[in-house]
Amino acid sequence: MQFSELIIKLGSAVTASSADRDRQRNPILTGLAPIEAAAAGTISYIEGDKFAKFVDTTAASALILPMNATIHTQADARGIAWIAASEPRLLFAQVIKLFYQPFRLPVGIHPSAIVELGVELGADVSIGAHVVIQTGVKIGTGVVIHPNVVIYPNVQIGDRTTLHANCTIHERVRIGNDCVIHSGAVIGSEGFGFVPTATGWFKMEQAGDTVLEDGVEIGCNSSVDRPAVGETRIGRATKLDNLVHVGHGCQIGANCALAAQVGLAGGVKVGNGVLLAGQVGVANQVTIGDRAIASSKTGIHSNVEPGEIVSGYPAVSHKLWLKTAAIVNRLPEMYQFFKQSQRS
Amino acid sequence: MQFSELIIKLGSAVTASSADRDRQRNPILTGLAPIEAAAAGTISYIEGDKFAKFVDTTAASALILPMNATIHTQADARGIAWIAASEPRLLFAQVIKLFYQPFRLPVGIHPSAIVELGVELGADVSIGAHVVIQTGVKIGTGVVIHPNVVIYPNVQIGDRTTLHANCTIHERVRIGNDCVIHSGAVIGSEGFGFVPTATGWFKMEQAGDTVLEDGVEIGCNSSVDRPAVGETRIGRATKLDNLVHVGHGCQIGANCALAAQVGLAGGVKVGNGVLLAGQVGVANQVTIGDRAIASSKTGIHSNVEPGEIVSGYPAVSHKLWLKTAAIVNRLPEMYQFFKQSQRS
Amino acid sequence: MQFSELIIKLGSAVTASSADRDRQRNPILTGLAPIEAAAAGTISYIEGDKFAKFVDTTAASALILPMNATIHTQADARGIAWIAASEPRLLFAQVIKLFYQPFRLPVGIHPSAIVELGVELGADVSIGAHVVIQTGVKIGTGVVIHPNVVIYPNVQIGDRTTLHANCTIHERVRIGNDCVIHSGAVIGSEGFGFVPTATGWFKMEQAGDTVLEDGVEIGCNSSVDRPAVGETRIGRATKLDNLVHVGHGCQIGANCALAAQVGLAGGVKVGNGVLLAGQVGVANQVTIGDRAIASSKTGIHSNVEPGEIVSGYPAVSHKLWLKTAAIVNRLPEMYQFFKQSQRS
Repeated sequence: MQFSELIIKLGSAVTASSADRDRQRNPILTGLAPIEAAAAGTISYIEGDKFAKFVDTTAASALILPMNATIHTQADARGIAWIAASEPRLLFAQVIKLFYQPFRLPVGIHPSAIVELGVELGADVSIGAHVVIQTGVKIGTGVVIHPNVVIYPNVQIGDRTTLHANCTIHERVRIGNDCVIHSGAVIGSEGFGFVPTATGWFKMEQAGDTVLEDGVEIGCNSSVDRPAVGETRIGRATKLDNLVHVGHGCQIGANCALAAQVGLAGGVKVGNGVLLAGQVGVANQVTIGDRAIASSKTGIHSNVEPGEIVSGYPAVSHKLWLKTAAIVNRLPEMYQFFKQSQRS
Repeated sequence: MQFSELIIKLGSAVTASSADRDRQRNPILTGLAPIEAAAAGTISYIEGDKFAKFVDTTAASALILPMNATIHTQADARGIAWIAASEPRLLFAQVIKLFYQPFRLPVGIHPSAIVELGVELGADVSIGAHVVIQTGVKIGTGVVIHPNVVIYPNVQIGDRTTLHANCTIHERVRIGNDCVIHSGAVIGSEGFGFVPTATGWFKMEQAGDTVLEDGVEIGCNSSVDRPAVGETRIGRATKLDNLVHVGHGCQIGANCALAAQVGLAGGVKVGNGVLLAGQVGVANQVTIGDRAIASSKTGIHSNVEPGEIVSGYPAVSHKLWLKTAAIVNRLPEMYQFFKQSQRS
Repeated sequence: MQFSELIIKLGSAVTASSADRDRQRNPILTGLAPIEAAAAGTISYIEGDKFAKFVDTTAASALILPMNATIHTQADARGIAWIAASEPRLLFAQVIKLFYQPFRLPVGIHPSAIVELGVELGADVSIGAHVVIQTGVKIGTGVVIHPNVVIYPNVQIGDRTTLHANCTIHERVRIGNDCVIHSGAVIGSEGFGFVPTATGWFKMEQAGDTVLEDGVEIGCNSSVDRPAVGETRIGRATKLDNLVHVGHGCQIGANCALAAQVGLAGGVKVGNGVLLAGQVGVANQVTIGDRAIASSKTGIHSNVEPGEIVSGYPAVSHKLWLKTAAIVNRLPEMYQFFKQSQRS
């Protein structure tokens, strides 16, 4: 695609561009690259001003830049075509969509797939090899189910949802429209419910439902359990990374992001727009308010207020944690002082 | 089911009930619900006295209550039918069993399943679509194997055990009676054994066995590795939640519970009745005594005594941890004092 | 195998042996065992001098010992045949290879496997039941693909590589020679790329590649994501244990070992020969130098120098961490002193 054509396709997403200064600088772009590894013919981006140094060395033929005239001049000096916007990463994401489409299974049902009697299929579904869809399942329009997926009876799946290979959807699950379930993920499995008795564990059957609202993504090998009663629910457009555990009865709001290896115990309530970084753990029944943020590895044992930023184990305010984490490393000195003071 | 019928079915599990006071209060119960979301026609429960406030607002038609006369009177005042026992959660688990049976595959072998020559199958087995059972496998009576499960050669599986969809059982594995292996779990995979040499890693073949005793449950996407020699063993009625890692050569006793994302390195010895909360890690060769408890995220590097409760990283007694965790947050003040003292 | 035959087969790997003292001590060895559980007829080993006590009690017929004359005499006194080397564990790994071969699928394509048009297969490949290999895939000589594996279009797999049951290989992946992908692992799945906008998350398509160099092993249920642009790359002979997460765009060097449940966020750079113990987490864009080591559960937020050993959260030098971890437990005393000092 020629650079000038790219500008036209992106339309109002582009705020400024080198085309305004030099219409001759119009390279043909054949691919995408990260800034450090970009070869001639590729388009790349820098996320913000602190990466400006890369403009001086990259071999990219075109760049997406932040709104910074100095950087634009830098690119001009090297003869690199550029476009700019206030959010370069977002603009780059839009450019990727113009160059790349992820693999999509062809429409149709592979002859090796098992679709039991009593399954309702919408129009234009793609069902891969060795998929197993059990009785009573309802599948919407344009759904893509990759090979070796297993769907237990009576599951409901909305329009345009994608299930990647080898994932498993258990009974009592409802998945919305435009969701993506990645490979190996397990949705609606039995919650971990065992009541201690004098003669050992008594298993509490998990009779509740699991609901993923529209636009939810669940990462590879993550698990979302169903509860004994009531619902486990993940709100609209919330995204889970790989190897995340959501315990039975959790209620997660809309537009959250849970990074890899996060674990929520049972009955956790998470508000809207919450960000949990990698390996965060949240204890049973805790409530986390809207737009709260937890740093990686945070262990959350008690409620978090809306908008709060927490870190550490047990979690405290991020500001306090930064202070104490620095001082912990002075403990040897402090301890020596303490011992001397006691002796004197 | 009518409330009076429920009382009869539960028998001696019920210690007291509203039927003793008011035989007319006999609602028809159509389902189960958590207390906050219960609608008319459902039965719910409160786990203990601190949830008594919900009795005043719930729309449930019947409740399971603790043995507390005040709460019973509260329910009477609202016209809610109730039964009571010293362990309401256990009684509720028994009630769920009367209302709900999890999905069970029909008995028989799906025509798409591959059962190789030399496999022994017990009576009344259910083998789902696209299951693969390789030569020399022995499977007991009433075993249920959901779709897309793979069993490597010579595995033994006891009576009434359930394998959920997409799990994998490797060679040299023996699974007892009444076990449940959840979706995506991998049992008997090669332990992580690499010996460093001048020319790189030398792979130590994992020639040992993996044994799950009767009544063991393994959560979704968990992995239990086989050792180089000897056994990895999980004792009777021990339950593992999702995404748990059990390294090669671990010996876990009976009646333990390991919560989600727990990781045991190689050769760990865990006694009976041990509880490890979410995301706990245990280092190589550590021994954990009977009935010990570790709080979530605890990092255990050295042996834990029977009955001990540990927390923190590195693990210390839970009591000490509670003290130090509180004081850590006073470190900024303490440090300021230390700096001033030094200056003076 | 007779003991004398074993010595011949091991050749120069054996530095000393009881055969030099007593040619009559020549037991028939029928199996392998860990030292504590060894029965007559088995060969076992002790890893170093501190396990010497086991020589006095083991029932093993033969032992692999360190180069320590006292221990050799100990074994002689009990009539146990022995061989010795400076690295007993390495020698034991070589002995295992003589007694044990892991299960290997027979060469050929199972009739239930789906191999689409346009797939290139090398000689002597083994393709198990219900495997799905999509168009454009190239597979080398001697590759073993266990049942229910799914390979997306255009993947390349080198010679002698093994894919265990139920793993998934996504598009844009190149796997080298002599690799092992364990059950449930997912390679080349979409990286977690969502750009926040006023109207919610904007998905960044992941158009990059994933490359595993020769000799890489990926543990059960681990996930290695592909990036938006550029590569995710794992270097030659690097080994990942189970349930490891490698975020999009990570670059891992050669000969590393990442233990179970390690998580790398996006764009992490790891040098050669790096060891990350269990449950370590590494933040976005961090660089870890060659031969660095991180203790279990370490949380790495900033760069680690080559050869550095780090521990704790946030990570500090292991030496400092050992000091502070010990002193943290004196905090209650220190705090009491601080309170008293303030009052006085």
